[in-house]
Amino acid sequence: MDLATIIGIVAAFGVTAWAIYLGGSFGAFVDIPSIAIVVGGGIGVVVVRFPLSGLMSAMAIGSKAAFSQSKVSPRELIEKITEMAEVVRKQGPLGLESFEVDDPFLAKGKQMVADGYDPAFIQDTLERERDLYLERLVEGARIYKAMGDSAPAFGMIGTLVGLVQMLQSMDDPSTIGPAMAVALLTTLYGALIANVVCLPIFEKLNAKVKVEEINQTLVIDGIVQIRNSKSPNLIREMLISYLPDKQRALMDEAA
Amino acid sequence: MDLATIIGIVAAFGVTAWAIYLGGSFGAFVDIPSIAIVVGGGIGVVVVRFPLSGLMSAMAIGSKAAFSQSKVSPRELIEKITEMAEVVRKQGPLGLESFEVDDPFLAKGKQMVADGYDPAFIQDTLERERDLYLERLVEGARIYKAMGDSAPAFGMIGTLVGLVQMLQSMDDPSTIGPAMAVALLTTLYGALIANVVCLPIFEKLNAKVKVEEINQTLVIDGIVQIRNSKSPNLIREMLISYLPDKQRALMDEAA
Amino acid sequence: MDLATIIGIVAAFGVTAWAIYLGGSFGAFVDIPSIAIVVGGGIGVVVVRFPLSGLMSAMAIGSKAAFSQSKVSPRELIEKITEMAEVVRKQGPLGLESFEVDDPFLAKGKQMVADGYDPAFIQDTLERERDLYLERLVEGARIYKAMGDSAPAFGMIGTLVGLVQMLQSMDDPSTIGPAMAVALLTTLYGALIANVVCLPIFEKLNAKVKVEEINQTLVIDGIVQIRNSKSPNLIREMLISYLPDKQRALMDEAA
Amino acid sequence: MDLATIIGIVAAFGVTAWAIYLGGSFGAFVDIPSIAIVVGGGIGVVVVRFPLSGLMSAMAIGSKAAFSQSKVSPRELIEKITEMAEVVRKQGPLGLESFEVDDPFLAKGKQMVADGYDPAFIQDTLERERDLYLERLVEGARIYKAMGDSAPAFGMIGTLVGLVQMLQSMDDPSTIGPAMAVALLTTLYGALIANVVCLPIFEKLNAKVKVEEINQTLVIDGIVQIRNSKSPNLIREMLISYLPDKQRALMDEAA
Amino acid sequence: MDLATIIGIVAAFGVTAWAIYLGGSFGAFVDIPSIAIVVGGGIGVVVVRFPLSGLMSAMAIGSKAAFSQSKVSPRELIEKITEMAEVVRKQGPLGLESFEVDDPFLAKGKQMVADGYDPAFIQDTLERERDLYLERLVEGARIYKAMGDSAPAFGMIGTLVGLVQMLQSMDDPSTIGPAMAVALLTTLYGALIANVVCLPIFEKLNAKVKVEEINQTLVIDGIVQIRNSKSPNLIREMLISYLPDKQRALMDEAA
Repeated sequence: MDLATIIGIVAAFGVTAWAIYLGGSFGAFVDIPSIAIVVGGGIGVVVVRFPLSGLMSAMAIGSKAAFSQSKVSPRELIEKITEMAEVVRKQGPLGLESFEVDDPFLAKGKQMVADGYDPAFIQDTLERERDLYLERLVEGARIYKAMGDSAPAFGMIGTLVGLVQMLQSMDDPSTIGPAMAVALLTTLYGALIANVVCLPIFEKLNAKVKVEEINQTLVIDGIVQIRNSKSPNLIREMLISYLPDKQRALMDEAA
Repeated sequence: MDLATIIGIVAAFGVTAWAIYLGGSFGAFVDIPSIAIVVGGGIGVVVVRFPLSGLMSAMAIGSKAAFSQSKVSPRELIEKITEMAEVVRKQGPLGLESFEVDDPFLAKGKQMVADGYDPAFIQDTLERERDLYLERLVEGARIYKAMGDSAPAFGMIGTLVGLVQMLQSMDDPSTIGPAMAVALLTTLYGALIANVVCLPIFEKLNAKVKVEEINQTLVIDGIVQIRNSKSPNLIREMLISYLPDKQRALMDEAA
Repeated sequence: MDLATIIGIVAAFGVTAWAIYLGGSFGAFVDIPSIAIVVGGGIGVVVVRFPLSGLMSAMAIGSKAAFSQSKVSPRELIEKITEMAEVVRKQGPLGLESFEVDDPFLAKGKQMVADGYDPAFIQDTLERERDLYLERLVEGARIYKAMGDSAPAFGMIGTLVGLVQMLQSMDDPSTIGPAMAVALLTTLYGALIANVVCLPIFEKLNAKVKVEEINQTLVIDGIVQIRNSKSPNLIREMLISYLPDKQRALMDEAA
Repeated sequence: MDLATIIGIVAAFGVTAWAIYLGGSFGAFVDIPSIAIVVGGGIGVVVVRFPLSGLMSAMAIGSKAAFSQSKVSPRELIEKITEMAEVVRKQGPLGLESFEVDDPFLAKGKQMVADGYDPAFIQDTLERERDLYLERLVEGARIYKAMGDSAPAFGMIGTLVGLVQMLQSMDDPSTIGPAMAVALLTTLYGALIANVVCLPIFEKLNAKVKVEEINQTLVIDGIVQIRNSKSPNLIREMLISYLPDKQRALMDEAA
Repeated sequence: MDLATIIGIVAAFGVTAWAIYLGGSFGAFVDIPSIAIVVGGGIGVVVVRFPLSGLMSAMAIGSKAAFSQSKVSPRELIEKITEMAEVVRKQGPLGLESFEVDDPFLAKGKQMVADGYDPAFIQDTLERERDLYLERLVEGARIYKAMGDSAPAFGMIGTLVGLVQMLQSMDDPSTIGPAMAVALLTTLYGALIANVVCLPIFEKLNAKVKVEEINQTLVIDGIVQIRNSKSPNLIREMLISYLPDKQRALMDEAA
């Protein structure tokens, strides 16, 4: 679990809930039709804008990436790849069979080396997998962006519907307050969905796309070099020199 | 029919309608002058901004593209073109006469090959047709964008007109509520037209332009190679290598 | 007259006027000080931002371009230039003296050929005229943009002035409604001026700049080739190949 | 004085004042604490954002440039430089001693030629002066932009402060109106400062930067050529060919 | 201390506080749950968007840079580096041991020269340190931007929560005013945090990033040249020529 995503969203909802709790009951803040307008409208817009076929998988990959911690840093990947290169030098490709790897993308590359596939084929296969994954991640980010953009609009639409209904029947003044309160709920829902959930996750996914691109490209380069039986030190040097400057500075500091 | 467009718009309107239904009658939400201001104003702005000559056809092509499903994927097109190349190799160009093709653009190319036209002429004709079609599609998208941008503005104009009228005659307090309800309707219409219809369709058309450009360029390249009697395998290889990386990854996965 | 501009603006104002008419008298919607604030403020900002010297001519050229139909399409221009080239081939440059041309820019070029000026001088003179005209047109478009941007701001300023005045003297509740109605008028004026007049004309002028640049560059190229006694067919070919792809596609379709 | 800046700002304030005058007394529109919030807040933000050292001189240069008319056009500069070149050809550099020049930048260059400085030194000195001046002008423009951006925000902050105070003490209904009027004043001040003063001056300074860059570069080129004893005609030709196309077209027309 | 940052923020808060003081007590403007929503929500969004690991150090470095005065100008750095080069020429690298340097980055470089490290190693180490520092500074600026963007959103969310609570229980009209006042406080907090604190500091940090990049690159270049025993005059010339044009103009003026 990516604790930061969970903590951040829970904290933002938490202070809102605390303020509601101080002022009275939660019941007044739950209204099913209001939720239906904001969530249903947002989903409707997403369905219009994105092709149905890839919608579910992009949504799933995006959500998983937003809430799951990527366990490995570039530095750990390079260390792991260097270890693998040493295993291959000592025991040959078959020695990788029993080598333990956590990162699923690196594990797939390891298996292809152990299975003795052609370097060009390994590179091609892994690059396609990477492209497909990043494409889905970008699509997932854009879906969150689309929902974050449309939620406030549907919040306003719901409030306008509620206001028109309230204004049509103002005979009993005592009902005006609660009716207007319900009308405002959709605006509140829209603001919460956009600002607490969708837009921050969109930003987080954007950042993850960059990290994953660096990591997976690093894995591909390393695996291909291992398959080509390059020396562990050479592979290590090369992978570090591939990293962007700031990544290198960060690695250096951590070392 | 592009079910996604229909489903999305119907869903977004549906939840709004359901919320209206829960709160009372639909009658209070229909006001002809309000509709006239928002729709008429939006159309007026579009007429000022876009040349009259191409307005209707761009609008028609855009709407058709937004609501009709493009049946073919790049992968299906490549398979179909490969089949056609095999037919030509076995039976000559005339063999294409009886070959069944669904996609109208591919069908046109097929007919030109069967009719024995010059490769340069075929390429030129199809490229012009593609450019003209894409140009219209882009124009159609921009018309939806213009309407989506101006609808909320005219919604506000209508509400201001209604508010001024209401404020001028506040003698009878019991009429204030309903009058203000009617005034707010134009803002509601503007928000619905912009956020549920125009802007999502604009985004969808933008995506379709990219897909159609890839598909039709693929068809042109394939048809010209068939006319030049290239081998089916060669044509298939070449067309796949033309696809952008992610398209190839997606094709691979689907295969 | 460019009917589209007229029709669009009249239609947008028309539906607004119809809605006003349905709800009562027009009188309540006319308030001279409100008009003064929005129009005067907008003009003030334009005077600050644009140099006084070119303001009037840019405004005039912009307005004329927005409301007058450009009669000629690139295709008509090319046909006309080809005809002129044939006249010159048969009768020499002097034959153009009696040749009828509607487009004023083409007419000027024709006259210079008939007068036997040097090709370099003709090109130089026409290019300067084109640059000056396009510069004015762009400046005119920017003036409309500046007014369209500042009109809503002055609408809000006017409404704030009216609200402050109303709130200062709330002794007689019966005057509150009409006073607030008047205060809202400036916001309405600002929205109408910006959304119905200024911003659509700005967009239209932007489009016209592109069309005029293509047309006048075409005329310059054609006139210089005629002066150089190139053959009509050659000139025609060259001019068509100068057009952007989509223009060519559109010409083809119209042919 | 740049009359356009003065006239524009006075006109925009004038129509606002006239509308205030029609509706009652000016006194209700002057509130010192409201002015303090909007102006003080705006200045505070500027002080945070821009280094104190250059703030005053950038502000002074920007304000001077916005309100003072630049007397010379590129055409006049070129004529003046050509005259100077003729003086130097006839009487030598010392002849410039008694030559009258209005433009201070050109005067400085003239003096350096008369004093017999090295061409490279003259060019270097004038270019540094130009860069420093333009840098200050750009900084001045950005200060006006920063104030124009923050004024409406502080207008809203002031209004919120006023509203909270008013709502806290609603015992006497007769005070609600005037209290709310005062609260709205900061929003009005913010809108006026941003839309009438700061943002138009920002746009004007942006335009002046471009003009001054052309003018001063022209002067530097001309002065260096005079120092190198180039012929007046050659200098004139060269300077005109340096101007951007549209400037040349404008010169031509004025000639 | 960077007095400008302190003065600017204190001034902007000061005028707001003065306006509050004039209108009554400060007590009405302090509400703990309102502060919790705006600050807690903003922090929550930052935690979702930025990786937890670097959050604290980026925040600390950003805040320190915003509030601390960078004592050295490029000119002072160049003078200091020239002095160091003279010391090295006269006394050798060891002479730097007792040389006093205030700037910590220059001090680190000096120490490495005194310790006799390899030029390539010195350059590499200092460049990584610079990259890491600038990276943190940029991240710090982006955190302030994220908080400045989300504060008004959470201000609105808090106000909506307060309004809904108030509207639900309108039995006692005398409580409406104070309840609405409290509801508006979150909007006020959001506007103050965004416009007085976060966004100006974001802009200031953006400017500091540019200054620090110039300064530290200058130090690296100078230190490496000193280590290579280049002559003081040569180093001085080279460093000045590295500066951007406007910096040179500013140095010249100050000289």
